[in-house]
Amino acid sequence: MSHLDLFERASELAYRSCLPHVSIDCAVFGFHESSLKVLLLKMKGFDKWGLPGGYVKKDENLDAAAYRILKARTGASNIYLEQFRVFGQTGRSEHELAHWPEHLWQKQRFISTGYYALVDYTTIIPVVDRISEQCEWKDIDDLPDLMMDHQDILHSALTALRRNIHYSPIGLNLLPKAFTMPQLQKLYELILGKKLHRGNFQRKMHGFDILVKEDIVPVKTSHRPPIYYSFDIEKYNNALKYGLRQEW
Amino acid sequence: MSHLDLFERASELAYRSCLPHVSIDCAVFGFHESSLKVLLLKMKGFDKWGLPGGYVKKDENLDAAAYRILKARTGASNIYLEQFRVFGQTGRSEHELAHWPEHLWQKQRFISTGYYALVDYTTIIPVVDRISEQCEWKDIDDLPDLMMDHQDILHSALTALRRNIHYSPIGLNLLPKAFTMPQLQKLYELILGKKLHRGNFQRKMHGFDILVKEDIVPVKTSHRPPIYYSFDIEKYNNALKYGLRQEW
Repeated sequence: MSHLDLFERASELAYRSCLPHVSIDCAVFGFHESSLKVLLLKMKGFDKWGLPGGYVKKDENLDAAAYRILKARTGASNIYLEQFRVFGQTGRSEHELAHWPEHLWQKQRFISTGYYALVDYTTIIPVVDRISEQCEWKDIDDLPDLMMDHQDILHSALTALRRNIHYSPIGLNLLPKAFTMPQLQKLYELILGKKLHRGNFQRKMHGFDILVKEDIVPVKTSHRPPIYYSFDIEKYNNALKYGLRQEW
Repeated sequence: MSHLDLFERASELAYRSCLPHVSIDCAVFGFHESSLKVLLLKMKGFDKWGLPGGYVKKDENLDAAAYRILKARTGASNIYLEQFRVFGQTGRSEHELAHWPEHLWQKQRFISTGYYALVDYTTIIPVVDRISEQCEWKDIDDLPDLMMDHQDILHSALTALRRNIHYSPIGLNLLPKAFTMPQLQKLYELILGKKLHRGNFQRKMHGFDILVKEDIVPVKTSHRPPIYYSFDIEKYNNALKYGLRQEW
């Protein structure tokens, strides 16, 4: 089957089941060995990479569609997804799809809602579907060429993530269940793109009141054993819902 | 002309010129005499009030549509608008429009992007259009019943505004050109819904480096004359674009 035949088939399916003009793009971030990664895919017949995305079924909530799309790509459910912006410029895909026949679903104008997700890098197996040939983690500091306005979308996702880090707890899907303060700080530093002061960071994190000290029996060493923490799930979820404590 | 005939006419127009399934709702906030107001309208034949909104033309950018809708309601251009969330639940308008004929444009499912705006209460004249019978400022603490999911949208707009106040400067459209620190603090307190510490507030505001001290020759009084400030427009606009300085 040629690439275009595959997209033709996908087009017919979408016409039957999806809302026209409405799409979703997902920036899926993972944390691995002190670097921040994003999940990208390459569709058949395209040179450039893109963010995983999809459409919204006629009787499906927008957020539910985002969860379905993420699950299809990563196998992961129970992942925290956050809407961050809508991309509604005209001509978003014109250049990229110029050679495609007009009747294809994919050629219409789409208003795309961007979602970002933070996932556990180690438990995710990127899924290649029928219309893509690669789906891989790429380092945020070493990205390939991105299609359409996906560079903007990704940049906007990172900006939103950096802002929201002041209000929303992060780490639950990104760190092991028990972690040390330096591990948590490293994650924050990667997202914020800067070094943080150790004492201030600890004070701030404890102030959020979402950490529990773990009782891990230390192995006997000559060094002081590290202190392990985990998240208090109830407080963490409350903070996701209502925001972390802020001072003004 | 009956109310339904009016909506029928609006429906025909929209089918010709707008993208199906895509809509916009605006939460327009104004500041007046120490209270925060929101612009609401009442459509003909409806009991409940709603946020001003509209549709997106086939060849129009989403943000441009939001500016057009805001301008039509308020006469105001050059207003800072901020996207804050997409409302994509199924059945958002089902209950409210249950008695309307199926073929009407307004009956379809809409994925609505929410924008909020901060405007100068004193210079805005709310505009009543053909399909609405009232358009008025309502106090945020004394709201009438709202239609559809507009209560959620408004609540979500306020939440976003409260979050963004940490990153985005506010005041330029809400305060007189020259203002005092207590005036600015009052505005922040209204939006945040709490009293702020005077010294901390001043320190924080000065830290943002967007204020200019005004040289206003004081009238001779027995009191210490108030200090007036204005915004440094270039720095203010940069802060809108890149965010206010944050410490972590």
